[in-house]
Amino acid sequence: MCGNGSNANGAKGANGTKASGGAFRTNPYQPVGDYLSNVANFKIIESTLREGEQFANAYFDTETKIKMLALDAFGVDYIEVTSPAASEQSRKDCEAICKLGLKAKILTHVRCDMRDARIAVETGVDGLDVVIGTSSLLREHSHGKDMAYIEKTAIEVIEYVKSKGLEVRFSSEDSFRSDLVDLLSLYKAVDKVGVNRVGIADTVGCASPRQVYDLVRTLRGVVSCDIETHFHDDTGCSIANAFCALEAGATHIDTSVLGIGERNGITPLGGLLARMVVTSPEYVKSKYKLTMLKEIEDMVAEAVEVNTPFNNPITGFCAFTHKAGIHAKAILNNPSTYEILNPADFGLTRYVHFASRLTGWNAVKTRVGQLGLVMTDDQVKECTAKIKAMADVRPIAIDDADSIIRSFHLTLHEVAPTEAQAPVTA
Amino acid sequence: MCGNGSNANGAKGANGTKASGGAFRTNPYQPVGDYLSNVANFKIIESTLREGEQFANAYFDTETKIKMLALDAFGVDYIEVTSPAASEQSRKDCEAICKLGLKAKILTHVRCDMRDARIAVETGVDGLDVVIGTSSLLREHSHGKDMAYIEKTAIEVIEYVKSKGLEVRFSSEDSFRSDLVDLLSLYKAVDKVGVNRVGIADTVGCASPRQVYDLVRTLRGVVSCDIETHFHDDTGCSIANAFCALEAGATHIDTSVLGIGERNGITPLGGLLARMVVTSPEYVKSKYKLTMLKEIEDMVAEAVEVNTPFNNPITGFCAFTHKAGIHAKAILNNPSTYEILNPADFGLTRYVHFASRLTGWNAVKTRVGQLGLVMTDDQVKECTAKIKAMADVRPIAIDDADSIIRSFHLTLHEVAPTEAQAPVTA
Repeated sequence: MCGNGSNANGAKGANGTKASGGAFRTNPYQPVGDYLSNVANFKIIESTLREGEQFANAYFDTETKIKMLALDAFGVDYIEVTSPAASEQSRKDCEAICKLGLKAKILTHVRCDMRDARIAVETGVDGLDVVIGTSSLLREHSHGKDMAYIEKTAIEVIEYVKSKGLEVRFSSEDSFRSDLVDLLSLYKAVDKVGVNRVGIADTVGCASPRQVYDLVRTLRGVVSCDIETHFHDDTGCSIANAFCALEAGATHIDTSVLGIGERNGITPLGGLLARMVVTSPEYVKSKYKLTMLKEIEDMVAEAVEVNTPFNNPITGFCAFTHKAGIHAKAILNNPSTYEILNPADFGLTRYVHFASRLTGWNAVKTRVGQLGLVMTDDQVKECTAKIKAMADVRPIAIDDADSIIRSFHLTLHEVAPTEAQAPVTA
Repeated sequence: MCGNGSNANGAKGANGTKASGGAFRTNPYQPVGDYLSNVANFKIIESTLREGEQFANAYFDTETKIKMLALDAFGVDYIEVTSPAASEQSRKDCEAICKLGLKAKILTHVRCDMRDARIAVETGVDGLDVVIGTSSLLREHSHGKDMAYIEKTAIEVIEYVKSKGLEVRFSSEDSFRSDLVDLLSLYKAVDKVGVNRVGIADTVGCASPRQVYDLVRTLRGVVSCDIETHFHDDTGCSIANAFCALEAGATHIDTSVLGIGERNGITPLGGLLARMVVTSPEYVKSKYKLTMLKEIEDMVAEAVEVNTPFNNPITGFCAFTHKAGIHAKAILNNPSTYEILNPADFGLTRYVHFASRLTGWNAVKTRVGQLGLVMTDDQVKECTAKIKAMADVRPIAIDDADSIIRSFHLTLHEVAPTEAQAPVTA
């Protein structure tokens, strides 16, 4: 996987993990393998405790933060927490988390500034994620610094953090609206002084998948360090963009639980894993405890007082509900027909909806069996017509459909003796 | 835009619209223009009344369906409704909708079957969206037909629909798990008999953006008709996949309001437009009445008894809320720093959050101004520290932060007279 020297895995030891022997190429839904791709070899920087704290509804007290460290048992590689420079309690919580001896490495996210860096290294974190805006908009309206100043400060901060024996990432902010030559020069300079990772951030959520692929692929040829990526979801592409970044050779993806973050948030942990488990099932299933996903999402949803979106990948209430007749029929024959994800992998179950006007007789037949009743196929079809007729008039619940089935079955039962007796009386 | 003959726009008259003079190339966030791309020239097939009816919670009575036709005023090109073969009321509603004289063309979605097609053409629809499963999984477990039978039936149905003077689309189901050669042969055959559009459907939600680009681009070279695409969201890529399909030369995108559909649904109308308005602002703003988006989403959310997801693009409750100090500061200077979408385009407003431990003094300064108070920058910084200290202890609301500001201001006011008098008494 590292043969051509432009992929950092292995090259930097501490951050890279060898690819799992091209396991993803055994999956028929995956295009032909690509030696730069990391779709079967990526790390997650879980930022619910940093980006997530920037979500409008987030207020995380110490107890809540500790609960969220269930992410460690889930298997994320890094947990990123709010800058200790943000407030006194932020600093204390950061210190407390570092002392817990988690498997995941603890990072904090700080401005590219020596004061912030000094406060951060004292907390006991494993590494610093350093960030500064590089787009002309941010340079003009946020910090007011030019590229020469940015490069000089970046090198100073990186060398300081490294001198303390800690891991350091340097990221631009708003990378997709920054000048490409400026960006590449800056990344080349920080790579030269030994930064562990450079970061590409779509801070405003404007990037599209093929743009991401192109930028990461270009960067992959410029630096030898790892590449971290961070995608906001303003235009609904944060999962796809993360996927394309990995295809292009990115090594680390930032996520938060349910995607909570500034505005409508970033790449969600669950959504990313829905994408990745389809592409790289062995890697994802062996590394992450997927059956914990729902409880972690429920905990975060409760902490920030939102509902899990109805259409959330995997855990949305109807993610495994099948309704139309032709879907239901095929699903009952073989779930792979209309499911690319297996609910059992996440400790969940599928449901075949049969109480609607769109139902088909195969779904009703299954329900008849579940109710312990016996009907011929023709009888099931007749019963299905009754359910559809009722569902045309008003919404019906499972109970209603069950009543129709039971009542129809009773009719059959009443008729049967007469028919049975017919030969006798004839 | 049609110079090389492989793009159908214009070639088929009825379905294609000329590109708006490469308008998208004037947008700096858009990569170099591509003559096959339709990102600034696409049509929406709105399927809330078909795919949306397959959503677990959907029960649409006639009145609800009529309300949803607000989509016509919003500006969608096509409205797709449930097959009239599904139930008697479905047939009656389809007929009723066709009689309303909407600007949008009315389509219905039917199995590739002469019986279904005959029922559909009698309803008065403008066109039929014909579909059949082509993956080996669906051929084996759903309809049990081989490719030769599929092609023969497809041609029969297409010729019948065309003989009635109606528009006809032919789509495979589960296209991304179908054999490529089978697919291309089939599409070539139906193109030859004059189908208006062929459809690519990611029925199980397994496709990734660059796969979509590759398949659509390949197909673009094989058929001369329009290309419609349909993406499920199981792995969170439905918006990105639609975008990449347009980049590759697709002409039509299927959407539903809030993405409602089978399982966790398809490309959402609002999310797609969030993506497209960034890429092609002139085209999208001139064609769609974006200020209607929220009321249409609210109506559909109410009809299917779900909440708009907290993280929905554009209309999620915090899509335009800015919280972290450095974000707030820059947004107050120039909203483009951290917003790629302008809330005013959708009739919405932004909100800068200042009642949290992550706040910065610039956000507080703005709030001080909104409260009609006067403070020096140093005073605002001192007041900000008080807000952060309180927000470290417990979640604070705007009222709490306002109280801290007012109380701090009062202190200044009490001190001021003494200071003012000082020179006098000295």
